[in-house]
Amino acid sequence: MKTINVGILGMGTVGSGVVKLLQDHAALLDRRVGARLRVRRIAETGTPRIAVDPKLLTTDAMEVINDPQVDIVVELIGGTSVARTLCLEAVQKGKHLVTANKALLAEHGLEIYQAAATKRVDLGFEASVCGAIPIIRSVREGLVANHIESIMGIVNGTTNYILTKMTETGQPFAEVLAEAQAKGYAEADPTLDVGGLDAAHKLQILASLAYNGYIRFSDIYIEGIQKVDAVDIAFARELGYRIKLLAIAKEDSGELEVRVHPTMIPDTHLLASVGGVYNAVHIRGDSAGSLMFSGRGAGQMPTASSVVADLVEIAHNIIFHRPSRVSLLPTGAMAEGVGLRPMERIRSRYYLRVMALDKPGVLSLVSGVLGENQISISSVIQKGRAEQAAVPVVMLTHEAVEGDMQKALKRINHLDAVAQDTVCIRVEGAED
Amino acid sequence: MKTINVGILGMGTVGSGVVKLLQDHAALLDRRVGARLRVRRIAETGTPRIAVDPKLLTTDAMEVINDPQVDIVVELIGGTSVARTLCLEAVQKGKHLVTANKALLAEHGLEIYQAAATKRVDLGFEASVCGAIPIIRSVREGLVANHIESIMGIVNGTTNYILTKMTETGQPFAEVLAEAQAKGYAEADPTLDVGGLDAAHKLQILASLAYNGYIRFSDIYIEGIQKVDAVDIAFARELGYRIKLLAIAKEDSGELEVRVHPTMIPDTHLLASVGGVYNAVHIRGDSAGSLMFSGRGAGQMPTASSVVADLVEIAHNIIFHRPSRVSLLPTGAMAEGVGLRPMERIRSRYYLRVMALDKPGVLSLVSGVLGENQISISSVIQKGRAEQAAVPVVMLTHEAVEGDMQKALKRINHLDAVAQDTVCIRVEGAED
Repeated sequence: MKTINVGILGMGTVGSGVVKLLQDHAALLDRRVGARLRVRRIAETGTPRIAVDPKLLTTDAMEVINDPQVDIVVELIGGTSVARTLCLEAVQKGKHLVTANKALLAEHGLEIYQAAATKRVDLGFEASVCGAIPIIRSVREGLVANHIESIMGIVNGTTNYILTKMTETGQPFAEVLAEAQAKGYAEADPTLDVGGLDAAHKLQILASLAYNGYIRFSDIYIEGIQKVDAVDIAFARELGYRIKLLAIAKEDSGELEVRVHPTMIPDTHLLASVGGVYNAVHIRGDSAGSLMFSGRGAGQMPTASSVVADLVEIAHNIIFHRPSRVSLLPTGAMAEGVGLRPMERIRSRYYLRVMALDKPGVLSLVSGVLGENQISISSVIQKGRAEQAAVPVVMLTHEAVEGDMQKALKRINHLDAVAQDTVCIRVEGAED
Repeated sequence: MKTINVGILGMGTVGSGVVKLLQDHAALLDRRVGARLRVRRIAETGTPRIAVDPKLLTTDAMEVINDPQVDIVVELIGGTSVARTLCLEAVQKGKHLVTANKALLAEHGLEIYQAAATKRVDLGFEASVCGAIPIIRSVREGLVANHIESIMGIVNGTTNYILTKMTETGQPFAEVLAEAQAKGYAEADPTLDVGGLDAAHKLQILASLAYNGYIRFSDIYIEGIQKVDAVDIAFARELGYRIKLLAIAKEDSGELEVRVHPTMIPDTHLLASVGGVYNAVHIRGDSAGSLMFSGRGAGQMPTASSVVADLVEIAHNIIFHRPSRVSLLPTGAMAEGVGLRPMERIRSRYYLRVMALDKPGVLSLVSGVLGENQISISSVIQKGRAEQAAVPVVMLTHEAVEGDMQKALKRINHLDAVAQDTVCIRVEGAED
């Protein structure tokens, strides 16, 4: 039986999971691969989380990359600086590469995809998006015969956990975040997650594959969940909606929208029931129709499951002398003139919460401003709260243009009868 | 650009969808495949549902198979007799084969898998299970690093439509079936669907892949939905459950259970909210954890989407001179001594509805019989209905052994105070 040698960069949580999986499932994998996947070398500067043969260990990542026996390099260091250099080095040395590093691919993917294409090596990154869910394969292979109409994903477990908890308990954001940090569900510096950047990284990767062209990370509109208020979650529920942080890619009339923001979806939508740290991706293809994929989006073994799936695919390619699938990588601009739609031109329904000092007066003023900006209201809830100076006036709009909404909001927030900035949440997944 | 020639057997609904998709998405597919997928020949004895160049048409399927230009044969005739002969002929002629024919693979798959392995041709059958959902790829490739603990699927749209409608309206089975037939959601002869056979076909294919060994169709326990009563759906709802026809494969202590039957699942379970003609598969892998895939399980374009995905994969293999993936087919007995667990030894929780003539007396008698068979009751609902001679006594049991339950049921049904056969529905997806 042929041996395929794997070099691992980074023996943290996921790296240890990969080594454990290769050990525990050696017999099963031998049989399914038709070759032995062997860990040949591991680079780690700290202490490995599981016991490994000390002879395999080195503190120098280049030793792993330069080892002529290593067939596949697995980058699990994270970050975009050292990891970028090492990934490019590995590819330059003709190594196949597997990575779970979404930030790296989202920010420097083009360089890496192009290098892999030039060197004709395989590049596996199933683990970079939604952990255990085989979403990369599904988009690239399973739905290859589709023009993708839309992708809507809950792709960040931390924010989904926080929003789910806020929905269940009514607690404010800061309190739930602190709890999540205490439980290890959120990082000490939670910016990457709660700010929507991690979700945007995954969206960049998925949308680039789905639309066959490299989307610049800086072109993605990003809004985090820091300002999501327990009050709005409660109103959303009353209206039959949930608030989720969604990563959205949508094609319409030859233009592509790519955006990450808190989004209201009807509680009957399949994504609405995806709670806690689970991830899910809802895709509409023009021939396949609506599909949904859900599962664990992070964690040691779910992520390792996808890393090893990539190792198996590349091992197959090696033992059968197949060329890599680099032809399917988004190595250039989007084909067929699909352009990105600027955020101000997207169309959406909106949830607005206006904090009114003088309720009856404000409703007429606000609806006037909206009307002047081609925005019509579909429903209004007014709740008086005696103790408060300002009372919330909640409304849902019909579909409107984002730029019009931003103009209207500026004017509404300047009204004397409006006590604080109006909350505005985009609504998806419902009929207008 | 290289041309890959496709020969299509059967130009019914799916065949027409495949031709349409190849035409409509020609530019997109050229780009993604790096080759042109061309329909070279079509065998159809009736009138094709869409306009095609008459020169492509023949009434003789062997003309398509014998055409030396044809690289890939797509079998969309259905049935297990003529289709079997033609598929084997195509493979013998060295053609790659794509089929959506679940009955054929479930009943004669071993022969076809072995022939494909011998002739080293590719065999694509993504469309045979759950229409547009890339479930074959996900099990075979995405979850390759997992020992699969369980598969639970809603894999038949007709029965899911009927059960969903019965749940929503409270109508009886026969009435909903008649409506479904009128709307074209159910066949004139609905046996294959409502009897659970179609679901069992799909289970045979999925479970054989997941457990790396060919499972005989006759070893699958099958129970249809014909006897599901609106009364039991109503009781299930009251208890917080839905009734779904589930295809189940579960491994436990080295034994595999494969069964299709009406099943009660908690209404919080992800599968519970999959309504109408949608399909969904819930999979637990030992490293990936729980995953769910849902989408359109049938229909012209969803099925064509998966057929064309297979064509693209095989086209890639041809243009890059890759060998086929036949090594991943279940061409023999299950590995590592995994045996099938006979139905009488499975463990399950159960819902029972005993029709009692004398309520207080019957509960003590029934619980006595259950206790003697190592079955303990977890909850009981008793509803008196004044007008009726017999009243329903509904109970949920803790986990018990199927054989014990069958023995107990026989005795319960012979009790003088029991007016008719007791309804027994297995319960899954809930903690005991």
